[in-house]
Amino acid sequence: MKFELTILGSSGAMPFKDRYMTAHVLNIREQLFLIDCGEGTQMRMSRFRVRRGKINHIFISHLHGDHIFGLPGLLTSFGMNLRTENLYIYSPPGLKQMIDGLFPYEGKGPSFEIIYRELDTTVHQMVFENEDVEVWTIPLSHGIPCNGYLFKEKPKQRKMLKEKIKEYNIPFQDIAGIKEGNDWTDANGNMIPNSELTTAPPPVRSYAFCSDTAYKEDIVPIIEGVDLLYHEATFLEEAIDKAIATNHSTALQAGRIASKANVRQLVIGHYSARYEEINGHLEEARTVFPNTHLGTDGAVFDVERNR
Amino acid sequence: MKFELTILGSSGAMPFKDRYMTAHVLNIREQLFLIDCGEGTQMRMSRFRVRRGKINHIFISHLHGDHIFGLPGLLTSFGMNLRTENLYIYSPPGLKQMIDGLFPYEGKGPSFEIIYRELDTTVHQMVFENEDVEVWTIPLSHGIPCNGYLFKEKPKQRKMLKEKIKEYNIPFQDIAGIKEGNDWTDANGNMIPNSELTTAPPPVRSYAFCSDTAYKEDIVPIIEGVDLLYHEATFLEEAIDKAIATNHSTALQAGRIASKANVRQLVIGHYSARYEEINGHLEEARTVFPNTHLGTDGAVFDVERNR
Repeated sequence: MKFELTILGSSGAMPFKDRYMTAHVLNIREQLFLIDCGEGTQMRMSRFRVRRGKINHIFISHLHGDHIFGLPGLLTSFGMNLRTENLYIYSPPGLKQMIDGLFPYEGKGPSFEIIYRELDTTVHQMVFENEDVEVWTIPLSHGIPCNGYLFKEKPKQRKMLKEKIKEYNIPFQDIAGIKEGNDWTDANGNMIPNSELTTAPPPVRSYAFCSDTAYKEDIVPIIEGVDLLYHEATFLEEAIDKAIATNHSTALQAGRIASKANVRQLVIGHYSARYEEINGHLEEARTVFPNTHLGTDGAVFDVERNR
Repeated sequence: MKFELTILGSSGAMPFKDRYMTAHVLNIREQLFLIDCGEGTQMRMSRFRVRRGKINHIFISHLHGDHIFGLPGLLTSFGMNLRTENLYIYSPPGLKQMIDGLFPYEGKGPSFEIIYRELDTTVHQMVFENEDVEVWTIPLSHGIPCNGYLFKEKPKQRKMLKEKIKEYNIPFQDIAGIKEGNDWTDANGNMIPNSELTTAPPPVRSYAFCSDTAYKEDIVPIIEGVDLLYHEATFLEEAIDKAIATNHSTALQAGRIASKANVRQLVIGHYSARYEEINGHLEEARTVFPNTHLGTDGAVFDVERNR
């Protein structure tokens, strides 16, 4: 079952040639989660074949335009398509007023309801949960209220070995408990350890989205060991002064965070328009974290279940 | 000298594959005028090599999202590029509040000034004038305040024939008046008609932008004889009921307006996303106005000076 990230936009504050502004789509078991929504996100969805109708939850990191100016158009298109499902939008406070102000002539209102969830960006907390996934905030440092998001797959149940049901003649009503990890005791009082009756479920997978942010080591414990980390890398180290002045990170800093947090894979992005070529970012991050990859518009990162 | 229209977006309310939302750029003698600004306009400018820094005047027809959601991003990019020239934006009332509400975290403010000019969309009036061009509003019918724009090149002066200066020994100080069309009288009282002394300037060119609108014959006298008419053609006649219900036009109606106004050339656009193929629009409009062309993203229409 899928756990797959698609980068819809990899540019910083301004578009640059084929780089659009930040938007990511995470597909967890065919549930699509949109993270940030820069201008042109809906066109990127068409181009990269993302089924936008499957998006019910949108997570916004902060209220700078390059992360939200695609929302009004996307919402319009949802309405034109006569969407009926509720849409949940998580963001720092203030987004609803911004969006509402853009639709002065909305007549009958949209065919669907938008539920805004305003977040306290200074705390690490769970903001969404269903049977497959939990989403937690990651406090970031960007000069204005801003948080990243940590997506953690929930573990599936252990897998019952069919031959053991037969062998021990285990009654149907005990199986649910065994799948949850319980040992089993037969009619004669013999305890059979769970490990003999089941196999472990596939390991859970995780994705951390960290953008926009200055270098912030506080996030390391939160993102420790994630399968996939996206960390912004607006600048190269040669422009570290600019990174500091604008609350952004360099590619080297992104690599450092990945290394300290011992993640499996790092994806970088949010490149400044001053860089036509971004291979320098890749090389720089790899000096400290070799398993780094370039986020580019349309790139797909598949987190394998059996790794 | 140029009089050239570039279509940046040809779609209706929603994008469809390679069709982005409405935005036109008119280049008159290397002055660029932006007309409407749908989502993604700045990316379209990059793609179609429009030098956005040369835009000082933006004309907005109405405040539906598909005509304005590209503005916030474009303004942001102007600021990132440290633009210093004033930017003038003409639109129905309400645009400034919408835009201002989107920049809650703007710190020092942009490097340039935006001057909003709110228009009465119910009257035909001149809203801009410089030495090369006049821009007039065209009241449209779209359910909310909406007007199109008529761009009229100003005539250049008549061209003085150098050999006549010699022949009649015309003093330097009389030449300006002759270029303005005056006859000239020599020292002996002989009147030399202007037509003998000068040649006519090239004919003036004109472009009329009419979108969005229901079929509205009232506009015919205003756009009479223009070189290039853009008229929306959201639907085909088969969906005339939908056109009426949504205050839009069909391709046939666009052709009828072009025919009644005796324009030289018609460009259609604003196609509904229900039409994957738009050749039907072209054929339908051509049944009443043969010199019709499809507006498509990236299409360029050059109005020849010597036609």
